[in-house]
Amino acid sequence: MAATAKAGAVGPGRSTSAYSEVQHNRLIVSLPLPSVLKSPFSVVDGPPSSAAGNPGEIAKLFPNLFGQPSVSLRPGTSGAALNHNLKIGVVLSGGQAPGGHNVISGIFDYLQEKTKGSTLYGFRGGPAGIMNCKYVELTADFVYPYRNQGGFDIICSGRDKIETDEQFNQAAETAKKLDLDGIVVIGGDDSNTNACLLAENFRHVLSLREGKGLKTRVIGCPKTIDGDLKCKEVPTSFGFDTACKIYAEMIGNVMIDARSTGKYYHFVRLMGRAASHITLECALQTHPNITIIGEEVAAQKQTLKSVTNYIVGVICKRATLGYNYGVILIPEGLIDFIPEVQQLIAELNEILAHDVIDEAGSWKKKLRSQSHELFELLPQAIQEQLLLERDPHGNVQVAKIETEKMLIQMVEAELVNKRKEGSYTKHFGGQSHFFGYEGRCGLPSNFDSNYCYALGYGAGALLQSGKTGLISSVGNLGAPVEEWTVGGTALTSLMDVERRHGKFKPVIKKAMVELEGAPFKKFASLRKEWALKNQYFSPGPLQFVGPTSNDINHTLMLELGAKA
Amino acid sequence: MAATAKAGAVGPGRSTSAYSEVQHNRLIVSLPLPSVLKSPFSVVDGPPSSAAGNPGEIAKLFPNLFGQPSVSLRPGTSGAALNHNLKIGVVLSGGQAPGGHNVISGIFDYLQEKTKGSTLYGFRGGPAGIMNCKYVELTADFVYPYRNQGGFDIICSGRDKIETDEQFNQAAETAKKLDLDGIVVIGGDDSNTNACLLAENFRHVLSLREGKGLKTRVIGCPKTIDGDLKCKEVPTSFGFDTACKIYAEMIGNVMIDARSTGKYYHFVRLMGRAASHITLECALQTHPNITIIGEEVAAQKQTLKSVTNYIVGVICKRATLGYNYGVILIPEGLIDFIPEVQQLIAELNEILAHDVIDEAGSWKKKLRSQSHELFELLPQAIQEQLLLERDPHGNVQVAKIETEKMLIQMVEAELVNKRKEGSYTKHFGGQSHFFGYEGRCGLPSNFDSNYCYALGYGAGALLQSGKTGLISSVGNLGAPVEEWTVGGTALTSLMDVERRHGKFKPVIKKAMVELEGAPFKKFASLRKEWALKNQYFSPGPLQFVGPTSNDINHTLMLELGAKA
Repeated sequence: MAATAKAGAVGPGRSTSAYSEVQHNRLIVSLPLPSVLKSPFSVVDGPPSSAAGNPGEIAKLFPNLFGQPSVSLRPGTSGAALNHNLKIGVVLSGGQAPGGHNVISGIFDYLQEKTKGSTLYGFRGGPAGIMNCKYVELTADFVYPYRNQGGFDIICSGRDKIETDEQFNQAAETAKKLDLDGIVVIGGDDSNTNACLLAENFRHVLSLREGKGLKTRVIGCPKTIDGDLKCKEVPTSFGFDTACKIYAEMIGNVMIDARSTGKYYHFVRLMGRAASHITLECALQTHPNITIIGEEVAAQKQTLKSVTNYIVGVICKRATLGYNYGVILIPEGLIDFIPEVQQLIAELNEILAHDVIDEAGSWKKKLRSQSHELFELLPQAIQEQLLLERDPHGNVQVAKIETEKMLIQMVEAELVNKRKEGSYTKHFGGQSHFFGYEGRCGLPSNFDSNYCYALGYGAGALLQSGKTGLISSVGNLGAPVEEWTVGGTALTSLMDVERRHGKFKPVIKKAMVELEGAPFKKFASLRKEWALKNQYFSPGPLQFVGPTSNDINHTLMLELGAKA
Repeated sequence: MAATAKAGAVGPGRSTSAYSEVQHNRLIVSLPLPSVLKSPFSVVDGPPSSAAGNPGEIAKLFPNLFGQPSVSLRPGTSGAALNHNLKIGVVLSGGQAPGGHNVISGIFDYLQEKTKGSTLYGFRGGPAGIMNCKYVELTADFVYPYRNQGGFDIICSGRDKIETDEQFNQAAETAKKLDLDGIVVIGGDDSNTNACLLAENFRHVLSLREGKGLKTRVIGCPKTIDGDLKCKEVPTSFGFDTACKIYAEMIGNVMIDARSTGKYYHFVRLMGRAASHITLECALQTHPNITIIGEEVAAQKQTLKSVTNYIVGVICKRATLGYNYGVILIPEGLIDFIPEVQQLIAELNEILAHDVIDEAGSWKKKLRSQSHELFELLPQAIQEQLLLERDPHGNVQVAKIETEKMLIQMVEAELVNKRKEGSYTKHFGGQSHFFGYEGRCGLPSNFDSNYCYALGYGAGALLQSGKTGLISSVGNLGAPVEEWTVGGTALTSLMDVERRHGKFKPVIKKAMVELEGAPFKKFASLRKEWALKNQYFSPGPLQFVGPTSNDINHTLMLELGAKA
């Protein structure tokens, strides 16, 4: 097709001939749909919506969209004429999450089955693909090999944002050029905020041009393994379920290794910089001896020293019980939750910008006393890393610190003190792990496969009914798939504002681990037992058939239960 | 039981109530046996054996055992009276490997089914458990929860060796005290060498005491995920199959991530210090862009620079094809295969023992020019690690070097040069991974489960027939389990000698990757294609039921095919 040829260096897509047996078996598994999507349905508006915070500012930022109702799909036809022959674009935004390919399969199948003669374009390489009009036409042959498969490689992803007027104009040009009826943005909190801005902007152009211009609607889909995009209407983001199960397999294996070897403490850092959902979920799945939850560390204003002391305390108690091994889970973003570390980093950035770091260390006098103390507490390798490795702006690269290794060194140093005191007599051996990339592109679990397919299919329905500025919302997830609810939530209703560079910016606030929520409370009620008794739980590799294959992650189950 | 009480701090063993669904499903799966073990059989001697090398020295080291025949089990009874009411001990030696619990289940079931009234003792914590007479009686209730389960925690393992006269005497005391008819040693090359020395020593005591003393026989079992204990009669060591499948799942996921993100080179270090079998097998399972095989590096006398250049060459070629990402597999022991690195380490150890490391670097003049050049080539962090981190003997700690990170830095530095030359225009991003501990204690694959059960069951048969100094040998592994052959291989026939501290020491030579063997040749014939085209293969998580569940690893299949 001409459209395909125009897209430039487009790969040939995947060939199933290079598929492993397991991939192949997943490919041919049929995908169930919620029953509301299987029969004629109508899209029913709810009451007018508001915003998560500062509705006045959100109203100003989204004059066209603010207040619009969320919608739900109900059995029966509305009698309203539905558009056929749609032209829809889809884009993947941000980091990979298992299930993205099924969202696209869901949109594709909706268009095939309900809107004959429609066309689906995939924008390549994320939002930049929209701005640069880089796309591929997604045909049945092209899409098929990606069903139930991991990765985002069908059209790849990217981290660009459509933010400036010029970028909005570029996006509008593409929408006009392709005569798009709609765009589906598959992404996290930032990407869905951007999707809403795009929807607002297209609507704005539409109203300016009195209906002659842009008809393009925008629908979002909730994606992120981190699990930090969720609310009442959007119970979970896709990918979280699969990623946690992959990590839990590995953690379970490491636990059995720890118990068998009997001489190592395994410090496992898990992906998830902003929120600790993954770490909490993995703890609920595997019952480690120690789990650090960033949100709790922040709420209790813990210091690096107090976190270290907590770990050391458990290790010493375990030693008296005869256990010289254990497993400790740490969220990737731990450091960001510790106020004193943030303070030290801020001071270091200031000093590094203006002063010479002399070997004698007289520069340290410029640190406040608490920061100085903290700096001296850090292992030498971390000190050097803080001083030497800077980003292009000259700032300390906090993200590069391997938190699990830093904690091992700090725990080791403190245990040396305990030995001197006589309160610890064993030899401490730490092993570090980081589980991250291996979880983002695994074969999606049955849950993520089905959930994503419904999200995509539902997004198709929302676009066909002419909706914009909604995030595809599938609910009642604790029930069998047939009973799942389908609808769309007004993106503006999820928004608040933040002040950046003197301006209000709309944001969908990240959903953090709630210390009063059911998942954390369950963890908190069990952790003492897990610390001293060994109640390791080893889920094993993800099975796609059999009794475990439809299990849903603990976090979602507990949250659904807590709301029921 | 009194015996259990005597064993000191013995844990209660596992409770299946803490089992995940997948663990539980594995537990209740029945284990097939080779047909020769299911009906009456006789143990038939082969011809007299020799040694793998230096038979004269081996004969001197094993005067009682040298030359004894290997044996095979054949259908039909021999008519010879078999011992009943046996007392057998079992010990796990060295690092964990999936399937160890099934070897013990196999021995236990053999004793239960064929030798009524027998007792199985498990020595706790490895060979030290034999020397210290630390054991637990393995009852049906105790053993049952461990069937088809990962880990070594049923009795745990250890790395002690029984080597000195005093240690042999301690072992003999335990054997006498427990009135042992036999011991099964489950371990790698070193442990099986030790098993043979123990067998020789017990036989020696027996002959000294004219039959009144020690009746204890010793049988070995081939264990190691590294895959470097194998020969014609012992086609593979257990654990290798499962560990490689677990690593391949992770590598396959990382490959899809690499392709989806399009901007990272993932450097994956894999366990296996002495030989590169795991890396080769994982390459055959997943088709990475670059795979470094230590044995080839050594054979071609490659330098660190040439390995780096090879990687850089592929990266630059891929850049011209539009690919700015890839996956690279590196064996844990790479550095040990590079002669110039060994030379540098030796010189550094010498210098560090006698000289002061001055900051100005004048100590470097003591390095030979090639070593000096190499040292300067190393990234600064590695230089510091070499100079600062020493083991208790003051030696450089080579094992602590994270080879994958070192290579990332060296590749990055070389790509900066290429940019300056204009022959590389992309931005290089390296991500490092180490897959090790998560593969040692996973749920054993169907192959490892069945293979281990047959190894253990066969070991029971060898002991009952009064054999000693053999390694349990199960063959014809490409065929269905019923057709597997069972026997025992004279451990002395696998041995050669090495000169250590002026004495000949017996060793079972580690089986290295054969550059003329079928697995390497297949890899070598495909790697150019894998380097430039992306033929990633993603096996997905290990499935225990379904069409893939009985697949055998490529290395074993190719080796069996090559011999057929």
